[in-house]
Amino acid sequence: MSQGRLLYAQSGGVTAVINATAAAIIDTARRRKVPVLAARNGIIGALREELIDTTRESAAAIRALRHTPGGAFGSCRYKLKSIEQDRAQYERLIAVFKAHDIRWFLYNGGNDSADTALKISQIGRELGYPLTVVGVPKTVDNDLAVTDCCPGFGSVAKYTAVSVAEAGLDVESMSASSTKVFILEVMGRHAGWIAAAAGLAARKPGQPPHLILFPERAFDEAAFLARVKATVEKVGYCAVVASEGLRDAAGRFLAEAGTSDAFGHHQLGGVAPVLASLVKARLGYKCHWALPDYLQRSARHIASRTDAEQAWAVGKAAVEYALAGRNAVMPVIVRTSDAPYRWKIEAAALERIANREKKLPKGYITRDGYGITAAARRYLEPLIHGEDAPPYRRDGLPDYVRLDRRLLRRRLAPYAIAD
Amino acid sequence: MSQGRLLYAQSGGVTAVINATAAAIIDTARRRKVPVLAARNGIIGALREELIDTTRESAAAIRALRHTPGGAFGSCRYKLKSIEQDRAQYERLIAVFKAHDIRWFLYNGGNDSADTALKISQIGRELGYPLTVVGVPKTVDNDLAVTDCCPGFGSVAKYTAVSVAEAGLDVESMSASSTKVFILEVMGRHAGWIAAAAGLAARKPGQPPHLILFPERAFDEAAFLARVKATVEKVGYCAVVASEGLRDAAGRFLAEAGTSDAFGHHQLGGVAPVLASLVKARLGYKCHWALPDYLQRSARHIASRTDAEQAWAVGKAAVEYALAGRNAVMPVIVRTSDAPYRWKIEAAALERIANREKKLPKGYITRDGYGITAAARRYLEPLIHGEDAPPYRRDGLPDYVRLDRRLLRRRLAPYAIAD
Repeated sequence: MSQGRLLYAQSGGVTAVINATAAAIIDTARRRKVPVLAARNGIIGALREELIDTTRESAAAIRALRHTPGGAFGSCRYKLKSIEQDRAQYERLIAVFKAHDIRWFLYNGGNDSADTALKISQIGRELGYPLTVVGVPKTVDNDLAVTDCCPGFGSVAKYTAVSVAEAGLDVESMSASSTKVFILEVMGRHAGWIAAAAGLAARKPGQPPHLILFPERAFDEAAFLARVKATVEKVGYCAVVASEGLRDAAGRFLAEAGTSDAFGHHQLGGVAPVLASLVKARLGYKCHWALPDYLQRSARHIASRTDAEQAWAVGKAAVEYALAGRNAVMPVIVRTSDAPYRWKIEAAALERIANREKKLPKGYITRDGYGITAAARRYLEPLIHGEDAPPYRRDGLPDYVRLDRRLLRRRLAPYAIAD
Repeated sequence: MSQGRLLYAQSGGVTAVINATAAAIIDTARRRKVPVLAARNGIIGALREELIDTTRESAAAIRALRHTPGGAFGSCRYKLKSIEQDRAQYERLIAVFKAHDIRWFLYNGGNDSADTALKISQIGRELGYPLTVVGVPKTVDNDLAVTDCCPGFGSVAKYTAVSVAEAGLDVESMSASSTKVFILEVMGRHAGWIAAAAGLAARKPGQPPHLILFPERAFDEAAFLARVKATVEKVGYCAVVASEGLRDAAGRFLAEAGTSDAFGHHQLGGVAPVLASLVKARLGYKCHWALPDYLQRSARHIASRTDAEQAWAVGKAAVEYALAGRNAVMPVIVRTSDAPYRWKIEAAALERIANREKKLPKGYITRDGYGITAAARRYLEPLIHGEDAPPYRRDGLPDYVRLDRRLLRRRLAPYAIAD
């Protein structure tokens, strides 16, 4: 045990392929004979000393992990305070690391997690504890700086483009005498990356989606209604993709337009029903809407092969960087060619990534504000290339795995942390 | 042309596999040298004499039709009145059939369409026009009488079970510090067939879905909240599947619970947001909800192979029955064995099917009202067996086809019909 152990933790919203990264980390470490622990429910588990012993999981389970969605070890939405605000929390982490001979820490998450990883790398040094910290990219929001794209995004992009293509064919069939407008709400509170990906479904003029509503553009009710009407009159129906983060000119989220229901409760979320009600009331068209929510980011059955491969590659590289002692870095995806699409992994300093946000470039939205440009398509399309269906069981369901998740015996006193 | 032509029409809500039936009909008729016309937008197109000449579509297009969702020729929600109420409409249909030498009419739909097909078969006989009418089953609602199951249902069942399994893994990952309750709303206004199919995802106690809310059971708010709370406390999270047709004890749809938004519009639909607001307000749990709407019934990418094969088989049999002069029948699916699952196609009289509705058997819902029984599982599971992914293009999207849909030249005067 004097050789040291590697600790892995998942953070923030999970994706269809974050477990592919986990599987790559465990697989690569096993080949290097390094035992891997996984924090239960992310950094919370590290603080609580709830450490899963992945060496007890079978090789078959780790293989199946590669194609299983969700976060197999549990994730969390929990942000550490700054070292100045809560030094004790960082010291606790280092105490846990010491107690279990953890020499390498891999933190798999987004912007916030890159920041946390950076801070932990600093405190390790400060306290004289030999620790190598590597951030591992993951987010369906695709908003991490430096990396060309984020593992998790390509699969939600593929799910979204395929869903728009399919629902578009459905509503087109019905439009002569029934539904004329269909609205699909997609994730993306701050940036329209997923909304933009929906645009990949339209390969020719007139194909769905006909309108994309980006959070980058203030919602203009009159202009929107005019476009819907013109589209229905020209094409026969209209398929709209709306980002959950859509705001009006005053900056208010449309999804929080003050709806309440008969129980007197504030109605939770949904820009799509607000838009559908508007279309119905003002234009009189029969309207359907969909809000896939978690379905979009957990849809491993329609994962992008490119995304799954990149999720694996960043996990593998993270272990290699860690074991080589490269502290405070993150493996990022570097695009070397659009067509044919080529990419490679490089290390980037966490300082360049922590707390930054990659916005959707202005040049990716068409001038009218409702579509994507050729530049956007050039960037986005390779990310949904290829399929990577999970194996299916005889009962017709994907063969997803649930790990045993056996915890190591505690060596320290309990540590209180709010859920 | 004196040999006669076959007319095919799609009716009602489309499915992921209705085009597989269409492809089977065209393929089978081509082998028998019988030209197939397709009504544009269902029976509306037949009345308007908008007839698509499928002989102009390439063999490759018809092959691709087999794996393309939606209704390739357009469908409609339009019910003919009774012969007594509007005899002229039936006479118009027969006039169109005569003008284009249509000797066989295949109507692909649900209960209503079976009734329409039956009436058309009667009027043909009455007017002395030699016509053979065959109904072809299709509906995601799975509520047709006589047939063991309905083409279209197996694929939405598979989509739903897979989605619950995937989203369940997602919410489980997040539940320690974030979302604790997830609610998936599924189609099924009158019967809980799709809701029941979601239950296939739970193979062991404690697996999602934890609660299914069937339209067959009146919604009991207190009991529901108590079950959600108990599940979160025991399992750590709770995944709920709710049928859109859920009603309270007074018979009112929960989705129409009188919600209105800031624009003052009546909010359109959604039982899931109503339940989510209830959970948040009464139990304080963070709650997510999804409403896939058309996504569920158009998801050809995750079609059930069993369903796709049955959709093809009913199309093929329909042509054979028609050409053999078997009037006023429908090919139905007969189950001959549960395990291994075996089925065959037989002809059933339309009179036995028209306007009837197959309910979810009482014995399929567990005594507590929130789950499915072993009998339900025995019936449902074979229907999601096997995968039948469409081919994908290099751009990462399924290779769905759009037909040319060239219309035949009109031979009759225009006929007015409201959209």
